[in-house]
Amino acid sequence: MNVALLVSYDGTDFSGWQVQRNGRTAQGEIEAAVKSAFGVFSRVTGSGRTDAGVHAAGQVCNFVLPDGIRIADGRVADALNTFLPSDIRILHSVQVEDSFDACRSAQKKTYRYRVYFSRREHPLLERFAVRLDKRPDQTKMQTAAAILEGEHDFSAFSSTGSSVKTSVRTVYSVFLVDRTFADGTDGLEIEVCGNGFLYNMVRIMAGAIFDCGSGKMAVDNIGTALDTGKRDLLGKTMPAKGLTLFSVDYGFKVFT
Amino acid sequence: MNVALLVSYDGTDFSGWQVQRNGRTAQGEIEAAVKSAFGVFSRVTGSGRTDAGVHAAGQVCNFVLPDGIRIADGRVADALNTFLPSDIRILHSVQVEDSFDACRSAQKKTYRYRVYFSRREHPLLERFAVRLDKRPDQTKMQTAAAILEGEHDFSAFSSTGSSVKTSVRTVYSVFLVDRTFADGTDGLEIEVCGNGFLYNMVRIMAGAIFDCGSGKMAVDNIGTALDTGKRDLLGKTMPAKGLTLFSVDYGFKVFT
Repeated sequence: MNVALLVSYDGTDFSGWQVQRNGRTAQGEIEAAVKSAFGVFSRVTGSGRTDAGVHAAGQVCNFVLPDGIRIADGRVADALNTFLPSDIRILHSVQVEDSFDACRSAQKKTYRYRVYFSRREHPLLERFAVRLDKRPDQTKMQTAAAILEGEHDFSAFSSTGSSVKTSVRTVYSVFLVDRTFADGTDGLEIEVCGNGFLYNMVRIMAGAIFDCGSGKMAVDNIGTALDTGKRDLLGKTMPAKGLTLFSVDYGFKVFT
Repeated sequence: MNVALLVSYDGTDFSGWQVQRNGRTAQGEIEAAVKSAFGVFSRVTGSGRTDAGVHAAGQVCNFVLPDGIRIADGRVADALNTFLPSDIRILHSVQVEDSFDACRSAQKKTYRYRVYFSRREHPLLERFAVRLDKRPDQTKMQTAAAILEGEHDFSAFSSTGSSVKTSVRTVYSVFLVDRTFADGTDGLEIEVCGNGFLYNMVRIMAGAIFDCGSGKMAVDNIGTALDTGKRDLLGKTMPAKGLTLFSVDYGFKVFT
C-alpha cells in the first residue's frame, strides 16, 4: 500500500527534512516511527527538503507499507504518532495510487515567511517569526513582490553550493498578508507559491522584499538580479525560523 | 526612580512568576537582570503571580532603581534585556509615580485561554494552545460564559490550597473569540477580564465553558457551583500552557 502523509513539524530542533549522518531530521524521525510501528524499514519520500530550522504546517511525504501489514490507511497516522516525538506529527494518512511520488508528483508548493514589527523581541513570537524594527513601506514591498512573480531564472536567489540542472522556476504568486499576532503585535507574512524553489530561494526573496520596503535596496535591483544572476545585488538570507512550508499541491485533493 | 516594566515571557520553562527556592521564575530572572545591569538588588513587584507554565504577553511589574544610577527610564528595558534569557523580555520601561505598586495599583487583568480543534496534535500550536477534538457548541459556551460575568463568590472556581481573605471577585467580561491560527487550524480564545482571580480560576472557568459546550456538563452546574462553592460540580483544571496573561489595567496608560 502506497501511503501519503500530511506532516507538521516545529523545525527549531531539526537539522531539516532530509536524513543526514549527524543531526535529527524529520525524514529520519518518520522512518524510525515506521520501523517501530510496522517492524520494517521503508524509505519515506518528501515533497522536497526543508532546511535546518524551517517549519512545516503541511509537508507531504509517502512510503510503501508492505502488503502483509493490515491497517486502515487513515489509522497509519495514529500508529506513527505513537512513536514520534512531540515536535513532529502526522496530521493525516491516506492510501494513494502506486504511481504517487510525493516529490515527483508535486505541482506547486506554498511557503510563508513571517515577520513581526517591534523595537524589542517578543518571546511569544520569536519561535516562528523574525523581528523587524518597523513595518517596511507597503507599496515598495508590493512592487518588489510583483517583479518576482512569473517564470524567471532565479539563480541570483539561491545560495552558493546548490547544484541543480536549471535555476528556472515559476513563481505563481507572492502575496503580502498583514497579520496581527495573538499577543496584539503587528506583523506580516509573505506567501510564495511556485512550482519549485532553489536552495534558500524563499528566504532570499523575503529579504529582498523587506530591503526594498525599508529603502536599504533599490527596487530595480530585483529585476537586475533576475537578469544577471548576481547574488550580491540582493541582501542577506533571512533566518530559517521565519519560514514555514505551508502546503504542497498535487493537482488533486490528497487528504480528504 | 520607581520603574514600571511591561514583560512578556514564554512560560513553558518557568516555574511561574514568583521567586521560589527551587525552579526558574520570571520574577527571579528579572531580579537577577537588575542586579547584573545595575549592581543592586531591588525587589521586583509583579501585578500578580502566574502559575508554572502560564505565559505572559503583558505582565506588569515595578521596582525601585536607586537614585545614584543615571539612566533614561525608557532605556531600562534595553539594559535588562541584555541580561535576560531569550524566553523573557522587557517590552517597555517607564518611570512611574512613587506610589505606583504593580500589584496594589492594578484595577483589571485580562487573560486569554487558547484552544484549537483537531483530531490530532499540531506541533506548531501545542506550545501556546490546548487541543480539543472538536469545536464545542457555541451557544452553550456563550450561555456558560455569560453566567460567569459579574460579581460572584468564585470559591468553586479555585483549586484547594489557596488561602485568600475572600473569594468574591468581579468578572467584567468573558468573550469567546474565534481564531484561525497561522497554520490554518480552527480555534478559539476565551478572553476573561476581571478585578482579580483566584488560584487556577481562569483555567477552571475555561474548562467549565468547554465542558458545557461539549455537553459533558449541564450549563446549570455553573450557577449551582457559584451558589454552593462546590468545586466538584465543575470539570478539570485546563492545562497551564493554554493560558496567557494578556494585559493589566491601571486606570491610566502606563506605557506610552
